[in-house]
Amino acid sequence: MKSGEGFSIEVQETSAATKGKAPLIPTPLPPPRPEGWGKGIAILDLILRICAVVATLASTAAMGTSEETLPFFTQFFQFQASYDDLPTLQFFVIAMALVGGYLVLSIPFSIVTIIRPRAVGPRFLLLILDTVALTLATSAGAAAAAIVYLAHNGNPNTNWLAICQQFGDFCQKVSGSVVGSFIAVVLLMVLVVLSAMALRRI
Amino acid sequence: MKSGEGFSIEVQETSAATKGKAPLIPTPLPPPRPEGWGKGIAILDLILRICAVVATLASTAAMGTSEETLPFFTQFFQFQASYDDLPTLQFFVIAMALVGGYLVLSIPFSIVTIIRPRAVGPRFLLLILDTVALTLATSAGAAAAAIVYLAHNGNPNTNWLAICQQFGDFCQKVSGSVVGSFIAVVLLMVLVVLSAMALRRI
Repeated sequence: MKSGEGFSIEVQETSAATKGKAPLIPTPLPPPRPEGWGKGIAILDLILRICAVVATLASTAAMGTSEETLPFFTQFFQFQASYDDLPTLQFFVIAMALVGGYLVLSIPFSIVTIIRPRAVGPRFLLLILDTVALTLATSAGAAAAAIVYLAHNGNPNTNWLAICQQFGDFCQKVSGSVVGSFIAVVLLMVLVVLSAMALRRI
Repeated sequence: MKSGEGFSIEVQETSAATKGKAPLIPTPLPPPRPEGWGKGIAILDLILRICAVVATLASTAAMGTSEETLPFFTQFFQFQASYDDLPTLQFFVIAMALVGGYLVLSIPFSIVTIIRPRAVGPRFLLLILDTVALTLATSAGAAAAAIVYLAHNGNPNTNWLAICQQFGDFCQKVSGSVVGSFIAVVLLMVLVVLSAMALRRI
């Protein structure tokens, strides 16, 4: 009879343990957030990242192939314009190619954050490198914009003449490329803020 | 005897409930982090923010007062250079003044995060606005750098001549101002990453 009592007590204990016991945990921690939120941000991150890759590579390609040769020439000159003529536009091509390359390489990390929405390392790495890429893309875009503005309007105070009257097609292509870089900049800004939101919600 | 058995079972249950029950909690949550970490980041944030204010306002003031009048003049011209002559440098002054104003206004929010290291709202607001300020400061600095480079070196392909042979002091002051803006850009990048770190650690 004694041993039989022992067994019945054990069964009771197990059933008590499976009951709720919220008030016994010392500090009431907030409930863990649902994984869906982090996963949603990670998917949005991947989509925006792919858009940024397209914008960056398109603008790099447009700038890199911008060239115009005028259909007339003199004895000494053939009138030709290319992005090579302006060091700032060369910098633009190099910087945007770097940003594009980084964005392509960052896609696997973005996929990792979709599979594991609670992983902190990849997100934090992406946030830091996105900030650097944002700065690089912004500086390239702004510097090119300053030069394109000068090519369009010239500056009478410094005797820098506009060249877009002669090289209209060249200027149009370069301007389009600068616009593409600014789209990439806006996307990178959103990516930085999204990464911070995801870090908060983990 | 039946009722006595029932009471003894109840007592067993209570003692079982006060025992350790670690394996029964479904997911082991990490312990809350100490407040010191968040406070340290917030203090570092305030110090860097004040440094960024100094760099931004100094570079704005240097650019805004950059002016040089050459000591000779012809019948028609007085040779004078000022930041007003170049629209890009005007943009620089306006954009850097905006960034400086924002940074000054953000100091109270930074102090709030020191007093309440677990407050999420101010930190997240600072992160978003810091990202915008970073983009604005970078674009201003890069555009001005492109123009200053042109003023120093000129560009033979587009017949834009260097003006720094004539206006040496002007160029020097403008170059210093651009360097100041890049210091502010680096500080803002660190501020963005710090805010993200703080959001993670809350």
